[in-house]
Amino acid sequence: MSAPPIIILVRPQLGENIGKAARAMLNFGLTEMRLVAPRDGWPNPSAGPAASGADIVLANAQVYDSVADATADISHIYATTVRKRGVTKPVITPEAAAREVLGNAGRSAILFGAERSGLESDEVTVARAIITVPINPEFGSLNLAQAVILCAYEWSKTQDLASPPKTDLDPPASQFELDGLIQQLDDMLDPLGYFRPEDRAPVTRRTLRNLLTKPAWNALEVRTLRGVLTTLSRNRRTEK
Amino acid sequence: MSAPPIIILVRPQLGENIGKAARAMLNFGLTEMRLVAPRDGWPNPSAGPAASGADIVLANAQVYDSVADATADISHIYATTVRKRGVTKPVITPEAAAREVLGNAGRSAILFGAERSGLESDEVTVARAIITVPINPEFGSLNLAQAVILCAYEWSKTQDLASPPKTDLDPPASQFELDGLIQQLDDMLDPLGYFRPEDRAPVTRRTLRNLLTKPAWNALEVRTLRGVLTTLSRNRRTEK
Repeated sequence: MSAPPIIILVRPQLGENIGKAARAMLNFGLTEMRLVAPRDGWPNPSAGPAASGADIVLANAQVYDSVADATADISHIYATTVRKRGVTKPVITPEAAAREVLGNAGRSAILFGAERSGLESDEVTVARAIITVPINPEFGSLNLAQAVILCAYEWSKTQDLASPPKTDLDPPASQFELDGLIQQLDDMLDPLGYFRPEDRAPVTRRTLRNLLTKPAWNALEVRTLRGVLTTLSRNRRTEK
Repeated sequence: MSAPPIIILVRPQLGENIGKAARAMLNFGLTEMRLVAPRDGWPNPSAGPAASGADIVLANAQVYDSVADATADISHIYATTVRKRGVTKPVITPEAAAREVLGNAGRSAILFGAERSGLESDEVTVARAIITVPINPEFGSLNLAQAVILCAYEWSKTQDLASPPKTDLDPPASQFELDGLIQQLDDMLDPLGYFRPEDRAPVTRRTLRNLLTKPAWNALEVRTLRGVLTTLSRNRRTEK
């Protein structure tokens, strides 16, 4: 079981963005944030409100003077960049990075640069690989928290703890139950002349059966529909 | 080739969030936004600045009075919800939804509810499936634009147009070139007694070779390292 990645924000400018990054992280189960030389110092009063309750991430955030200090205990460093640079490193997607981190022995960390300027070339150099989000070539405008959330989200997809929203759906009704519905409808339609002319009746019945088979209604839904048909029968009788 | 999903914001409250959603969409190539009864009317002066340049999405956004009107031409409706409800519909991830949309004939749309309240039960009812982002069970706090960006991002991953960041890396140096480096180092170390005692020399040489094989240096890097070794040799001679 490999350790989750540490998120390192390098020279973040706005406390609000640090808070948003914390919120993005915690949504997907990441809790370890490091800050390298945050512009306005730390703690920053704007961070808390933007974290929308992810206070634990901010409270535990560690502050460092340099990327070197912040990554001293990290074995696998990934640097996020927006634009392609002339670097001779593998460029991978957040998805591929998440899979790599999962397989990494030792701690992994993902570096995010300052809001406008991104990471400096020297900071990218310490990374073993570069993470770039594949983006609309005609409109690339990911902000810091968005870049963080996509990396955290991809990590969470490798984890079972990211509660997969499973709902046990009722299975489709048995063929016997479905046949009961179809027969009931047939019994109602036949006296009304729906299946005339007689030589077209088999095709019409097949069409109806296909149409009623397609929804894969469960037993409860089939019972509900039979109740609907029963009601329709009664009303007609009453009107007569 | 299936059509991209239409993003429908139902009763959005803040213009800023509509702008952020537009930005999130365009980053991943989605351009069709529909608004159902935006609280503060439309257009909304707060939307533009928050869109960070995704103005085309806002300019083309269409406004409707009801979900029924906004989805009249849609064949496949997906509703995003945060919490599990007692609904008997499939609950799928953004990833699974993107794959479904890709295979859908006819237009698909994803409904997003108001910032605080989400979609109403009646609005969820029109959907064929529910999209829920798997999230930290102890901290789920996705805002509207974040939910939109994750759905748009997953859609983009099904599209080739989401420029995969490919960098053609130089291949590792040939074995001949690598051997040249190893031999040069060996020639430098041997006279200094590095390989003594003699009976340990084969193991030591194997260790070195493994260590220098692992990085998969390219030809340029191997040449650089040979230059480093050459310099080291010179310096030692000079010092003598």
